[in-house]
Amino acid sequence: MSEIHEELYKKSLELHAKYHGKIETISKIKLDSLDVLSLAYSPGVAEVSREIARDPSLAREYTLKRNTVAIVSDGSAILGLGNLGALASIPVMEGKAAIFKEFADVDAFPICLDTQDTEEIIKAVKQIAPVFGGINLEDISAPRCFEIEERLRKELNIPVMHDDQWGAGTVTLVGLINSLKLSGIKKEDVKIVINGIGAAGVATARLLIMYGIKNIIYCDSHGIIHSERTDLTKEKKELLEMSNAHMEKGGLADAVKNANVFIGLSKPGLLTGEMVRSMAEKPIIFALANPTPEIMPDEAYEAGAFIVATGRSDFQNQLNNSLVFPGAFKGMLENNIPQFKTEMFLDIAEALADSVTDLSVNKILPSMLDKNVVKIVSEVIQKYK
Amino acid sequence: MSEIHEELYKKSLELHAKYHGKIETISKIKLDSLDVLSLAYSPGVAEVSREIARDPSLAREYTLKRNTVAIVSDGSAILGLGNLGALASIPVMEGKAAIFKEFADVDAFPICLDTQDTEEIIKAVKQIAPVFGGINLEDISAPRCFEIEERLRKELNIPVMHDDQWGAGTVTLVGLINSLKLSGIKKEDVKIVINGIGAAGVATARLLIMYGIKNIIYCDSHGIIHSERTDLTKEKKELLEMSNAHMEKGGLADAVKNANVFIGLSKPGLLTGEMVRSMAEKPIIFALANPTPEIMPDEAYEAGAFIVATGRSDFQNQLNNSLVFPGAFKGMLENNIPQFKTEMFLDIAEALADSVTDLSVNKILPSMLDKNVVKIVSEVIQKYK
Repeated sequence: MSEIHEELYKKSLELHAKYHGKIETISKIKLDSLDVLSLAYSPGVAEVSREIARDPSLAREYTLKRNTVAIVSDGSAILGLGNLGALASIPVMEGKAAIFKEFADVDAFPICLDTQDTEEIIKAVKQIAPVFGGINLEDISAPRCFEIEERLRKELNIPVMHDDQWGAGTVTLVGLINSLKLSGIKKEDVKIVINGIGAAGVATARLLIMYGIKNIIYCDSHGIIHSERTDLTKEKKELLEMSNAHMEKGGLADAVKNANVFIGLSKPGLLTGEMVRSMAEKPIIFALANPTPEIMPDEAYEAGAFIVATGRSDFQNQLNNSLVFPGAFKGMLENNIPQFKTEMFLDIAEALADSVTDLSVNKILPSMLDKNVVKIVSEVIQKYK
Repeated sequence: MSEIHEELYKKSLELHAKYHGKIETISKIKLDSLDVLSLAYSPGVAEVSREIARDPSLAREYTLKRNTVAIVSDGSAILGLGNLGALASIPVMEGKAAIFKEFADVDAFPICLDTQDTEEIIKAVKQIAPVFGGINLEDISAPRCFEIEERLRKELNIPVMHDDQWGAGTVTLVGLINSLKLSGIKKEDVKIVINGIGAAGVATARLLIMYGIKNIIYCDSHGIIHSERTDLTKEKKELLEMSNAHMEKGGLADAVKNANVFIGLSKPGLLTGEMVRSMAEKPIIFALANPTPEIMPDEAYEAGAFIVATGRSDFQNQLNNSLVFPGAFKGMLENNIPQFKTEMFLDIAEALADSVTDLSVNKILPSMLDKNVVKIVSEVIQKYK
């Protein structure tokens, strides 16, 4: 690890120690007189409780539910670090909560669960749901994440989204749409390798197929995924059926030969300069493992990469979910839309890609700091009202 | 219901509709540059997660856990309104969260559970515990609340307190200590009736006995509790054994005859003027049912009451838990004390009673708005470090 990263990590620890975390829960109402206390608390609050008991839909009118998202994790797949457990997931979920508020004025609170059992997670989320207007699942490992999201969408009456799937998939598609514009390859002709078929890999593939990409080769830790393999999950089998992947076999090095695009949603250092050199002309490299990408940008460029994107704020072309989730939930909450649909994410990706007016190989995405992003995303969602 | 209360209820609904609830979750750090994002979120946050995975005690240093309390309810006993369920409990829990922050700078978040099963509540609270430094149980009906608190204290490594028990019990003891000073009766001689032996009634009785009160008569919805009754819970039997209650029988009207103090933790309107007139000289009336007391203050005074206290901010002598819970949790969190003990609440009651320097029949308690209260309470807790 370079000295620059050591320094960044040290500064991050100092920042977290200084504030003891990143979010706080404040009162919207100054409680400075007995009069206001008698309205905000006893006896006045009794009437609010009675009204909500009479008509449960009033919880949206009279409580935080209307604007509050639970960020739920079991700590089983924290960033690219693996299964570090509930406590270690808190700083990541707090960071997301801070981004929710700062970018979209949505209130969010971390729910870090001390269980990694699928049924227990589903049950716990259903039990805590009354307070929330939406559920953002986060850093829950595949394949449990697929069942958890699917079941919660069916069994709860508030929107549920696993951000490692749809946030990651959407922002990757934004980057891809604009990279294809810059390289001049048509979506029907492009050959894409997705390395890492976990939560993000599966959702990215689904969105790419829905967008019209025909030729995708999938790789997991056992190499290229093909129909003769006997170890495939339900999700991997479905992806093979939906894409026109040629019957290639072998490892990642075989897969990337003559590919136009590498999308890494896997582990640090898996892509070498040599592999980049074996790709087709103008290689497009999305090395999205966090915090350390599959290949560092400087190495990829040295090997001839045309466009490089990572998940990090300290490099150009950051493919970060923060472009999507704040506005997506804001749109759902504001318009009281009951559930997410895959089509929404496709529409968001196209809208965000179109919003980049100063497109270049170093600027394939809108800036995370652009206040317009949340507006664009939530307006896409509004159309589904 | 009087017009004044109709007006207050209307204003309370308006206030809640205006703000859509009372609390919001904000970022302590302004996320206005990619540099700060790379420290607060990816990639910097990865190091914080790794450090906490290495040493779980660092969650207190680097996350919100250090200063954050879960306010947990199942909505089974909301104020004095009964079992209105999880959604209807949200405004009360939000009100507590607002008070936590405004009075003690403690962050708190409502966890309103969609289950009323004892084992499921215990399991859910244990599962969400990683994020929190303390658990405030609230508005959970007796007798389940006793087992839930006891089990969670044993099975979690953070402080757990059922505020309907200990907050209510402590503040009642504060009022009693000062009322006895004013009336001149010794604690060994006083005859007290506690009406309503739910969560608050049981804890109040336990604290009163620990303080040195000898003669307590307990009433529940079936009348005076005595040892020949066959319908008594474990807690009620224990109270009978611990106090020297005379073997009185009958209803509330029989119990209050010649009593010095009536403590109502029950339901609106149960105490009549006639009953007050049957009490001993200088009757002390704590009519604590929320939002509507067992007897309205004007009626109690008309019947000769010496001191009247209620749970409401719109009358004098408000016996409100808010005098206790903010400072109690602040003291526990700041000093990293693993668990509450009953002795703490006795000490808090004595300290708060002593703090009232302008004692009178209309001022038996410190003001809820007195910033010194939190300091006094948290300093008592600090002694248990």
